[in-house]
Amino acid sequence: MTKNDGATDSQSKDIIKVEGGSIVTPLGYAVSGIYSGVKRKRNDLGAIYSEEPAQAAAVYTLNAVQAAPIKVMKETMAKEQTIQAVIVNSGNANACTGEQGIEDAYTMQKLAAEHFNVPVHYTAIASTGLIGERMPMENITNHIPNLKVGNRPQDADAFCESIRTTDTFNKSVCYQAEINGRTITMGAAAKGSGMIEPNMGTMLSFITTDANVASEHLQEALKEVTNQTFNCITVDGDTSTNDMVLLLANGKADQESLAPGDEGWSTFVRLLELTCESMAKSIARDGEGASKLIDVTVKGAKTDVEARQIGKAIVGSSLVKTAVYGSDANWGRVIAAIGYSQAHVDPEKIDMWFGTIQLLKQSQPTSFSEEEATTYLSGDTVDITVHLHQGDGFAKAWGCDLTYDYVRINASYRT
Amino acid sequence: MTKNDGATDSQSKDIIKVEGGSIVTPLGYAVSGIYSGVKRKRNDLGAIYSEEPAQAAAVYTLNAVQAAPIKVMKETMAKEQTIQAVIVNSGNANACTGEQGIEDAYTMQKLAAEHFNVPVHYTAIASTGLIGERMPMENITNHIPNLKVGNRPQDADAFCESIRTTDTFNKSVCYQAEINGRTITMGAAAKGSGMIEPNMGTMLSFITTDANVASEHLQEALKEVTNQTFNCITVDGDTSTNDMVLLLANGKADQESLAPGDEGWSTFVRLLELTCESMAKSIARDGEGASKLIDVTVKGAKTDVEARQIGKAIVGSSLVKTAVYGSDANWGRVIAAIGYSQAHVDPEKIDMWFGTIQLLKQSQPTSFSEEEATTYLSGDTVDITVHLHQGDGFAKAWGCDLTYDYVRINASYRT
Repeated sequence: MTKNDGATDSQSKDIIKVEGGSIVTPLGYAVSGIYSGVKRKRNDLGAIYSEEPAQAAAVYTLNAVQAAPIKVMKETMAKEQTIQAVIVNSGNANACTGEQGIEDAYTMQKLAAEHFNVPVHYTAIASTGLIGERMPMENITNHIPNLKVGNRPQDADAFCESIRTTDTFNKSVCYQAEINGRTITMGAAAKGSGMIEPNMGTMLSFITTDANVASEHLQEALKEVTNQTFNCITVDGDTSTNDMVLLLANGKADQESLAPGDEGWSTFVRLLELTCESMAKSIARDGEGASKLIDVTVKGAKTDVEARQIGKAIVGSSLVKTAVYGSDANWGRVIAAIGYSQAHVDPEKIDMWFGTIQLLKQSQPTSFSEEEATTYLSGDTVDITVHLHQGDGFAKAWGCDLTYDYVRINASYRT
Repeated sequence: MTKNDGATDSQSKDIIKVEGGSIVTPLGYAVSGIYSGVKRKRNDLGAIYSEEPAQAAAVYTLNAVQAAPIKVMKETMAKEQTIQAVIVNSGNANACTGEQGIEDAYTMQKLAAEHFNVPVHYTAIASTGLIGERMPMENITNHIPNLKVGNRPQDADAFCESIRTTDTFNKSVCYQAEINGRTITMGAAAKGSGMIEPNMGTMLSFITTDANVASEHLQEALKEVTNQTFNCITVDGDTSTNDMVLLLANGKADQESLAPGDEGWSTFVRLLELTCESMAKSIARDGEGASKLIDVTVKGAKTDVEARQIGKAIVGSSLVKTAVYGSDANWGRVIAAIGYSQAHVDPEKIDMWFGTIQLLKQSQPTSFSEEEATTYLSGDTVDITVHLHQGDGFAKAWGCDLTYDYVRINASYRT
């Protein structure tokens, strides 16, 4: 099963969502996902291959403790910012594994490079799974030769599955736009869920496009968009040792090189925004144990940065999350979260809506119907909008409810 | 039932814990706790009275949204930093109640002042309970005249009960020390639990002493000690609109005025530390739904401030909390929390213990027995110690596990 949460926007009229599209819909990409035995069952080893070396950009976890593949990736990307093959496994994060872990990551990268016949420094690597145990290298080395890439929908599905840990569904999306007379396609696959179960690294996202964009511009765009999308999701506030978003642009759409300031640039950035927003929402919806997506909109903050702070405080509040789980229109908890967000707030001037139901006007409760609010909160998506009346700051943030299942999943033994 | 978690320290040899002691053990204090009907049942209105006007110090919530009684208290304390009577209710927080709420808080303060025949600005006020609903003033005004204070143990119990919300036990402690030839006693009562259930304000603590200390020195000491104690507990990371710690010193022990630099000052501060630490631990242990106290010690951080950051990241991590609930020695989650604490960390140099069991040495897993660790984690107190080897920074932090009951309590309807 593949689900995705579409992002919509009035500016996006030239961009279409490709139903059934995926990471292999952009020209020149093929993927594979197989079972190697790192996990007990299900696919756990995946690869992406681009016909042409692709310009590349990546952002990484800010956790001071970084897994071996993150270290190797940073070193690799420092060379040419060009990637042609990606090797990724789930089930073992290769984190807190010392020198041995670094050596294992190098070996994995080298074997993938040989298999795809590309330079080692054109080969990206990622891992997600258990922390603190050595990568079972025999499984990896034995199975890399079995990675036969293809660009059929079932290949994309197999790849999506190979990167999952506690995710309950595949996360995949594809958008298209006309840019300067050429059709540009962008696809993505992601995995998310809680940070760790048991000890699972959270968030990996791989984005492919056939656009022709230099890596430096990709990097700039990815960094900005990540701040507004992936960095605005909260499942439990824990950031992993293995998070990474990788963006590849192989230029196969045969379009002229695109750069900031060009006519089509804003459309390209919007394509990236929609892709990242869709993946971010899917990850939030599939947070560990989640039964509902919480979609927060903050308006009228002093700045965009403060709006983001407020949005993240709201979706990060355990008390808001449990209230949403209980379908309780508990606006006091939202107010309290706004209050401790450390943003500029006038506590007397807050407007608040759950869906289209206004609960607060100038911080005073309206005479809203509790029953109507409870019905709204029983749906699978809960929109919370707050207006602070402090300025033009705007942000979105996404999270999920906190349920018995979150406790069950995370309280269970690793073994 | 009254429980407390004693704090122990080799420096505290001159300080004794008074078994069965309470907020009325220091000379010259009397309290009352009665039922007024703000809550459905159980005591909900309390008072403290000091025979002499007491020098006073207070610290408040940092939430930008502050309840009416907090605003009134700040105004009151700004006058003479002297308090002789305290009026407090549970069941309604008088928060997000606009101008009406301020007016109600003034009325409550004024009636208490009249009842105890003390000046209005010698009368402290606090509330905890539901946010966003008007204080049922009739209950308050009708029952203030019934507040008959006494200094028997049952009076202290009745008071402790009157400030509880979702707390499952009374929180009370008393310590004594010889200072400059006089016996100085300090007692405290507190309430804690989660921030809000449903919409309950978290944390109130009232500390009484018969020491003779000027309010400016009390304030300085309280601020510092609060940072190391009350500010190092985390139940769910949410800070309330109503938090307050109030410290009264009425000088009834007939000792010479004590000030920083005096011989007995460090003993007095230590008395305050032990009192606050004990209350902080009791609050953490009684966190909503908690089954275990998590007691974190951070050594070898770059600074004390960074040690505190790390400690709070560990006790604040939902993943650590669920692992403790599941008695799972999941050190990877502790490592990840250290990593995102934003303190200086060398990820290769972390030592970690659960109780006396060393799990990590220089960030590498030891060959500890999982079985032994699970047995240790099944107790009602889990000590986690980390050593960073970055400097001399030291801190303690306290929290509780995250359980099904936390979700149950907080997902339930307000009505």
